[in-house]
Amino acid sequence: MKAVRVHAYGQQPSIDDVEEPTINGPLDVLVEIGAAGLCRTDLHVVEGQWAAIQDPTLPYTLGHENAGWVREVGSAVTNVAPGDAVILHPLVTCGLCGACRIGQDSHCDNASFPGLNVNGGMADLLLTNARAVVKLQPNLQPADVAALADAGLTAYHAVRKSLDLLTPGTHAVVIGAGGLGHIGVQVLAALTSATITVIDRSSEARELAGSIGADHTLDANQTDDQILTQVRDITDGGAHVTFDFVGEHGTPTTGVAMLRNRGSYYTIGYGGEVKIPTIELISREINVVGNLVGTYHDLVELMTLTAQGRVTLHTRTYPLDAALDAFHDLESGTLVGRGILVPKNAS
Amino acid sequence: MKAVRVHAYGQQPSIDDVEEPTINGPLDVLVEIGAAGLCRTDLHVVEGQWAAIQDPTLPYTLGHENAGWVREVGSAVTNVAPGDAVILHPLVTCGLCGACRIGQDSHCDNASFPGLNVNGGMADLLLTNARAVVKLQPNLQPADVAALADAGLTAYHAVRKSLDLLTPGTHAVVIGAGGLGHIGVQVLAALTSATITVIDRSSEARELAGSIGADHTLDANQTDDQILTQVRDITDGGAHVTFDFVGEHGTPTTGVAMLRNRGSYYTIGYGGEVKIPTIELISREINVVGNLVGTYHDLVELMTLTAQGRVTLHTRTYPLDAALDAFHDLESGTLVGRGILVPKNAS
Amino acid sequence: MKAVRVHAYGQQPSIDDVEEPTINGPLDVLVEIGAAGLCRTDLHVVEGQWAAIQDPTLPYTLGHENAGWVREVGSAVTNVAPGDAVILHPLVTCGLCGACRIGQDSHCDNASFPGLNVNGGMADLLLTNARAVVKLQPNLQPADVAALADAGLTAYHAVRKSLDLLTPGTHAVVIGAGGLGHIGVQVLAALTSATITVIDRSSEARELAGSIGADHTLDANQTDDQILTQVRDITDGGAHVTFDFVGEHGTPTTGVAMLRNRGSYYTIGYGGEVKIPTIELISREINVVGNLVGTYHDLVELMTLTAQGRVTLHTRTYPLDAALDAFHDLESGTLVGRGILVPKNAS
Amino acid sequence: MKAVRVHAYGQQPSIDDVEEPTINGPLDVLVEIGAAGLCRTDLHVVEGQWAAIQDPTLPYTLGHENAGWVREVGSAVTNVAPGDAVILHPLVTCGLCGACRIGQDSHCDNASFPGLNVNGGMADLLLTNARAVVKLQPNLQPADVAALADAGLTAYHAVRKSLDLLTPGTHAVVIGAGGLGHIGVQVLAALTSATITVIDRSSEARELAGSIGADHTLDANQTDDQILTQVRDITDGGAHVTFDFVGEHGTPTTGVAMLRNRGSYYTIGYGGEVKIPTIELISREINVVGNLVGTYHDLVELMTLTAQGRVTLHTRTYPLDAALDAFHDLESGTLVGRGILVPKNAS
Repeated sequence: MKAVRVHAYGQQPSIDDVEEPTINGPLDVLVEIGAAGLCRTDLHVVEGQWAAIQDPTLPYTLGHENAGWVREVGSAVTNVAPGDAVILHPLVTCGLCGACRIGQDSHCDNASFPGLNVNGGMADLLLTNARAVVKLQPNLQPADVAALADAGLTAYHAVRKSLDLLTPGTHAVVIGAGGLGHIGVQVLAALTSATITVIDRSSEARELAGSIGADHTLDANQTDDQILTQVRDITDGGAHVTFDFVGEHGTPTTGVAMLRNRGSYYTIGYGGEVKIPTIELISREINVVGNLVGTYHDLVELMTLTAQGRVTLHTRTYPLDAALDAFHDLESGTLVGRGILVPKNAS
Repeated sequence: MKAVRVHAYGQQPSIDDVEEPTINGPLDVLVEIGAAGLCRTDLHVVEGQWAAIQDPTLPYTLGHENAGWVREVGSAVTNVAPGDAVILHPLVTCGLCGACRIGQDSHCDNASFPGLNVNGGMADLLLTNARAVVKLQPNLQPADVAALADAGLTAYHAVRKSLDLLTPGTHAVVIGAGGLGHIGVQVLAALTSATITVIDRSSEARELAGSIGADHTLDANQTDDQILTQVRDITDGGAHVTFDFVGEHGTPTTGVAMLRNRGSYYTIGYGGEVKIPTIELISREINVVGNLVGTYHDLVELMTLTAQGRVTLHTRTYPLDAALDAFHDLESGTLVGRGILVPKNAS
Repeated sequence: MKAVRVHAYGQQPSIDDVEEPTINGPLDVLVEIGAAGLCRTDLHVVEGQWAAIQDPTLPYTLGHENAGWVREVGSAVTNVAPGDAVILHPLVTCGLCGACRIGQDSHCDNASFPGLNVNGGMADLLLTNARAVVKLQPNLQPADVAALADAGLTAYHAVRKSLDLLTPGTHAVVIGAGGLGHIGVQVLAALTSATITVIDRSSEARELAGSIGADHTLDANQTDDQILTQVRDITDGGAHVTFDFVGEHGTPTTGVAMLRNRGSYYTIGYGGEVKIPTIELISREINVVGNLVGTYHDLVELMTLTAQGRVTLHTRTYPLDAALDAFHDLESGTLVGRGILVPKNAS
Repeated sequence: MKAVRVHAYGQQPSIDDVEEPTINGPLDVLVEIGAAGLCRTDLHVVEGQWAAIQDPTLPYTLGHENAGWVREVGSAVTNVAPGDAVILHPLVTCGLCGACRIGQDSHCDNASFPGLNVNGGMADLLLTNARAVVKLQPNLQPADVAALADAGLTAYHAVRKSLDLLTPGTHAVVIGAGGLGHIGVQVLAALTSATITVIDRSSEARELAGSIGADHTLDANQTDDQILTQVRDITDGGAHVTFDFVGEHGTPTTGVAMLRNRGSYYTIGYGGEVKIPTIELISREINVVGNLVGTYHDLVELMTLTAQGRVTLHTRTYPLDAALDAFHDLESGTLVGRGILVPKNAS
């Protein structure tokens, strides 16, 4: 089969002919890929930034946002059958450790992460397990949802954790309405009555945000003071929750500054640093909340919202054979929306 | 009456003869002070560190940890009567703003803070209001509890907020078991089944901690790496919650480092800075939680625990006339336990 | 001034000329009534059903759903000023008891209830206090919102308490979409993504429900078995939450029967009886949740949703002088929507 | 091997020689029984009361409270190994359904229940799966904990769900301090600071309750009015939570009656009926909460408390061969404490 593989960090991945994976364990599930999302993290992997953290044996196949159809299942699999359309939770979890037992499976002690530390889904087939597959409702197709498997899930998870804070009359501020952020805006609109203010450098992103639930949009191409003044004005004294989908270039500082007392800053994007005097944390009684991917159940809920038409994703499709074009377009900034790789035979 | 007043920042306070305060408003309550706690914040006030934040009109009376007996009440006061023994919530709140309406009165929009921005309780009498007074149960005396009004309340509030996280089998780490921290340890022991590890430089503090609920104590006079190794060993991989009662001299960094994934660092002490790369916040999904004083209801609960004998306070008593000795002892480090000032006629 | 007063139970109320109330206490607020809602409870009061419970001194003025403009305030009132448009929380609370301190003021130990145990708002003026008044946002008028003060608040409170249960993919069933229920449907649609199924005997009510957020409507004029079969089909095995706005004529039994395991039955309407074998409570692990009016903060949130256009109320207006016509229309069933009494000079 | 089997309802079980079970599936775990608890439910099974609900193929082996040592594991089992001492969650769950995914595995869609619908643990060996086994800490032995697997777990689960309600100063009332209730009292004492009042007919049970955490004990051999008066006096107006471990003979009625406003009645025992006018549910805003067994994670937490010495169980041991004596003693009321059956070779 075809697979987009990394052979050496710092070099372009290549599209190789490789052997098909096969069912080994009783809970294994073999999936024919319908679509694999392309993500900035893939570029970072190729550059070698994740080498130390995930350390896969090279060469290996990229692709951590996957959806498709079940081809074959192990002997103990009872929740899906060949032919089922599925989206794949990014982690392959054990179901037996403490984290899995309480529904916090994104912190599974024994997880693997296809596309990061084992072979991923930029290929015709992917091997995962029964605990990773979410059956799609009949009105959803793998190519429509693949990019929700990681980017969408991460945005969903962060918003989901904040619901108790976003009661009627509260203000949510979203920093960055790109691939993750524009899902976050839709989830906020679907699950809360908070007033939503979006800050982004791109006028297209702001326009999109306005059309999918943002009540206010602000141009990020202003001084921090200008932005803070406008946010405090809109929010009548500060946000209850700030969702930072950027996490660098100063957004952690402004994201914290725009909170009201008792407010919470949710970090989703990364790269920068949170730096707050303890006197400020205390005197304003504010919080910083880290967010990582999402649980299997988060993905189930996100698929429900998607099937209900409350969340939609704008994508651009490439054949799997044209994966390098997609990587190039993402790198050069000409790829608008989320890139999706589709194998030749995906129906 | 006598009052310990600040006349100029940077100069010693003096014990003055001043006019007695009088009831002005319908919700006013005039309290004969039974005891006023002495706090490191009082030293900072005298030095002028709080001048910009609270900005009281000088001269004014210190004392923000107060308990005593009601002498007189305004026309609309229904919850206390002359003669009642009371402890005073440190804030005088309105009961009408949004924060007060939902029980978050420590963030009242219209509060004053006796001892910080208006006259406090290091005096024979203090003027407060009906919303600040908690009646003491018969087995409690003002001098036994005064220092719980602020120091104890702050420790209680932080622990109280963490209860959902401290389920059976979890680990709480307490950094600093001094005036606040030793209350925190007792509250943890009373309200949770978490395993409690205390880190302190003082062998007396560690010994006390061990006798009031700590399961493990660690000497803070070691390298950070030594401490982290021991904490990870005791906690089997990291604390679920770290309570930092110091908040400076590097404790924010080690306090965060000793968390397990999904753990939370609670800041209570201040002076230093929290500094965390966003990649760490995200990949470990950890949280930073600010904590400020406590609500009126927190104080009610803390008084209940105190009346039940689950929380006790070690204090050293000075006559109000000897206030400057107490300040001196606190400053020079010779005051062990919490200092308490008691007016001459307090029964 | 004019006032609709009960002189004896079992007799029609009369429209009397009475003395205007005056400010007595420092927290009093005197309100010029803009509109007073008419409620089935008013009929029950007149019949004497509430005599034993609330026991007002006769004659007294009806009206427990009130909105208007502040005419005058007591000396200690800081949150409203003469001229402010306000809606009135139905209870006049103390702000000092335990329930008030934690934001559960609808269980205030010292409350009065104008229109039930003291003079109410079917009059030109009503005396309440500072803790009962919620300022209206500029786009809201007293006549638009008066009936939200009690009926709307009760529906809001019940739905608000259930939010943690109504996550994406869950099912809410509403029994009875009348005066309270049709607010409940709108609040469910505004605050959750639950699928909403409404059961009502009236085709008009079902039609209205469908236009304001219900995903499914069922005719209550069927056998219980027919209804249960349809509910289980729609909800794929049972409701996560049932809101019973009827509470009699068998709805408590069917409302419980239509729950899935771990589901919750919310009682709002009353008159009947909940009767469940303990083996059923246990084997299905289901819950029964009582609901009473709402808190002040609930009313603030409901006013926010109303100002945002997410909740609207259908009403029919009568001049205060025509109060007896309104009572008659309500009793005879010819009053469609909520009846609102408007004093002559209400601007 | 030996097994205590039911051949026909209404007849005594017999101790049979049967074939040993064997590992069939990849997640199977074969356990050498160290001890199997004997429960009143076993008597009900023998009488045929559960025939319609669980419907096992006769003959089958009793025993749903089991602990022992792992003998053999299936190919996919990673969490235990032969020789491990384990306690068994009563349900054998799938790990794949919605309930399992969120940690609510006691509502697993695909569970079996050894001892109720398949062969149980009153035998030398029991077949279960990897998701049911909790490894014991070194200081615990199977015979010490077996009866916690179901009775203890059920009591734990109910108390665990109530923690948010039992804040400092609140009152918990426990009706029935027998096999389940005396665990409930210990868990309340370990996890809350609530004042605990126990009501029981047996002076031994009351004495035990007093020695393990009850602050007050009341003799159930009084009129309901006498009991209610005493409870209201002790609780200053009513309990915040009532735990009814009896659930019949009128306890549901008195259990609800002794609640304060906003209180919650927790049903654990069964047999009777909850019957409450909707007007009472509403006007007092009270709740009824059903409770069923507990989750795997509940059992992990309970084992933690047990290993810490906070929960202990009083038992009487019988050899497995003497099972019928144990049944007889339980039936005749001469069995004090929990009966435990121990196979011959259990070390």
